[in-house]
Amino acid sequence: MEKRSGENAARSLAAIRDKKPLIHNITNYVVMNYTANALLSMGASPVMAHAENEVEEMVSLASALVLNIGTLSDDWIASMIKAGKKASELGKPVILDPVGSGATSLRTASAKEIIEQVKVRVIRGNPSEILSLRHSDSKTKGVDSVHSVADAADTAKILAKELNTTLAITGPVDLITDGERVIRVSNGHPLMARITGTGCTATAIIAAFLAVDEDAVRASASGLAFFGLAGEIAGRKASAPGSFMIELLNAIYTISPEELEAGCKFMEG
Amino acid sequence: MEKRSGENAARSLAAIRDKKPLIHNITNYVVMNYTANALLSMGASPVMAHAENEVEEMVSLASALVLNIGTLSDDWIASMIKAGKKASELGKPVILDPVGSGATSLRTASAKEIIEQVKVRVIRGNPSEILSLRHSDSKTKGVDSVHSVADAADTAKILAKELNTTLAITGPVDLITDGERVIRVSNGHPLMARITGTGCTATAIIAAFLAVDEDAVRASASGLAFFGLAGEIAGRKASAPGSFMIELLNAIYTISPEELEAGCKFMEG
Amino acid sequence: MEKRSGENAARSLAAIRDKKPLIHNITNYVVMNYTANALLSMGASPVMAHAENEVEEMVSLASALVLNIGTLSDDWIASMIKAGKKASELGKPVILDPVGSGATSLRTASAKEIIEQVKVRVIRGNPSEILSLRHSDSKTKGVDSVHSVADAADTAKILAKELNTTLAITGPVDLITDGERVIRVSNGHPLMARITGTGCTATAIIAAFLAVDEDAVRASASGLAFFGLAGEIAGRKASAPGSFMIELLNAIYTISPEELEAGCKFMEG
Repeated sequence: MEKRSGENAARSLAAIRDKKPLIHNITNYVVMNYTANALLSMGASPVMAHAENEVEEMVSLASALVLNIGTLSDDWIASMIKAGKKASELGKPVILDPVGSGATSLRTASAKEIIEQVKVRVIRGNPSEILSLRHSDSKTKGVDSVHSVADAADTAKILAKELNTTLAITGPVDLITDGERVIRVSNGHPLMARITGTGCTATAIIAAFLAVDEDAVRASASGLAFFGLAGEIAGRKASAPGSFMIELLNAIYTISPEELEAGCKFMEG
Repeated sequence: MEKRSGENAARSLAAIRDKKPLIHNITNYVVMNYTANALLSMGASPVMAHAENEVEEMVSLASALVLNIGTLSDDWIASMIKAGKKASELGKPVILDPVGSGATSLRTASAKEIIEQVKVRVIRGNPSEILSLRHSDSKTKGVDSVHSVADAADTAKILAKELNTTLAITGPVDLITDGERVIRVSNGHPLMARITGTGCTATAIIAAFLAVDEDAVRASASGLAFFGLAGEIAGRKASAPGSFMIELLNAIYTISPEELEAGCKFMEG
Repeated sequence: MEKRSGENAARSLAAIRDKKPLIHNITNYVVMNYTANALLSMGASPVMAHAENEVEEMVSLASALVLNIGTLSDDWIASMIKAGKKASELGKPVILDPVGSGATSLRTASAKEIIEQVKVRVIRGNPSEILSLRHSDSKTKGVDSVHSVADAADTAKILAKELNTTLAITGPVDLITDGERVIRVSNGHPLMARITGTGCTATAIIAAFLAVDEDAVRASASGLAFFGLAGEIAGRKASAPGSFMIELLNAIYTISPEELEAGCKFMEG
């Protein structure tokens, strides 16, 4: 598995650099710049557009759509749903980043509304964000059991089935599942938690992989392995967040498909 | 005094890194990313949230609130006041950054409205911004007398009493007063004026110190000394704004409580 | 010509650093931070303000106005037009960056509406954005002929006359024309296309040159040569986008008028 998945990730990275897919982001103010730079640096083409009267047209031009509720307000949620429905209609992959879901009722309700109205191919979040999305009658266990990634596979599988999507739950070890398959990715570096927007950037990077790979579990694993490997490389060059943030963008640009294939740390099940 | 204050600053920095207080920012678009990175880098936890229907809930989770009018509009001001009132109610420290107050009537009026409706613990601004906040019948002297920080202590003390808050007036030498006590901080570096948002970042950093120190004068002085010292360290590594901006984030991360204690440049009265 | 234009560019750069002109930007969320840093780094004073009830007052304080539709929505367009009209009235230079015009109908219509209602001194865009601005009865040839900058001078001249402005069409070689004169600028570096907002930053930098030089063709050429030269210098220090982005800000700060005079790559006609 590890070998095969590494090959898939490498092939997808080469395809992104070849096709430069347009990724439409409706995302938060804090990370717009860094996210756009990460997508450009890896070889994709970012566009940020949120106006309700242009998102349908914009998403029609794009190969994937990112919905990120990091600095949400009602009008942006309306635009996200409009863009997401159009993307669903056109069969384009949509990835949701439910930033802060569970922390405020607006965020939890907005994330749930998006999931209900849009065909979301992947949801990327940390354990508490992901768990906040479960229905009131969910069969999942409580929050505590999910804060340990190692013990969380069963809960995640139940939740992925309930939400009918692929979950990419990130942490020291990432866990990806569509309810059947489970892949863990252990690439990464602790300094990734000390710069803002690495979660959001992971989401945007997965979107680029979804643009060239229809298999949502595989694309999520590839994207997280790629970004985590970039973190590892950056962590060998920088020991504080400012320099790390810059080296991370550099690594995203310089990692070759061969390096990615060799560097992926996947584990199945 | 210098020694004691350095000890306090060091203790607060250690407390921030230990407790990772959540700092709720309603701030301007330009600096959101850099501010969030500065807070993360120093050890605090930033959150940016501006929607009127979630700010009360968000500020309830936070340990301090930053209100920054750098790219204001009417709906954001409404959210700021709502969040600020809730914070006042809950006894949480609020710091106001009246960016551009005095330059346009919208900014001056908005800053004054916030001050009137919210219990603001600290106002951080440059001399002209701070002076623009005085009432029409203020006993303070004109703008000219305040543009020299050295001569400004008396004016600042009167104004702090009138506004019933602590003023942190920043410049080559910072002046902090609650109307009674006066502390000057001379840490800093000229390149801090050549990157955008250092004033706003100073405000957010003071918020983190306010989260662990109830004494507003002391917390403001600690925050400004810490950030100024980071500037000095960055200035030894970088000689142009791009690199300086990165080294500043690095220094915020690497400064130890001991270095801060040794590096504080305070002067009382 | 080359020599004379280099002298003009150098003189303008010195004037910007001397006068620190205030540049009012109504621009997109993605690039606000980088644009502000570029303006500060080169010696100008940036301000970002978009509220409809303050843009007239703000632009009255400024020496030039940037209108950038990169993340537009209806209310921001209204503010842009209000600010632009006031600037026109006061004889202040306005530069438009029609980001994505031609990609969605909202962008194309908004750019055209701004051009109709505001006296725009310069429009800076890539060939497809610029060409999307032509009237339905335009005498210009189709898009294909304009995607080669070398063949595009005639089309650009016709379009500049039709729109009654100066066009700064950027690409590997930039082409500037007011319908009569044509200047080409060949400064630049390929990595400029791998970080977000370099087009928007070019626009803001031209605005700073317009603030000290009434000749729109010359100011545009000076600004693009300056920024392109900064790219060349950055490209000698950095080989990946993260570091390049930082070195670009450094170069903007360190380039002296003499270096600029020597480094300009102009070609007339």
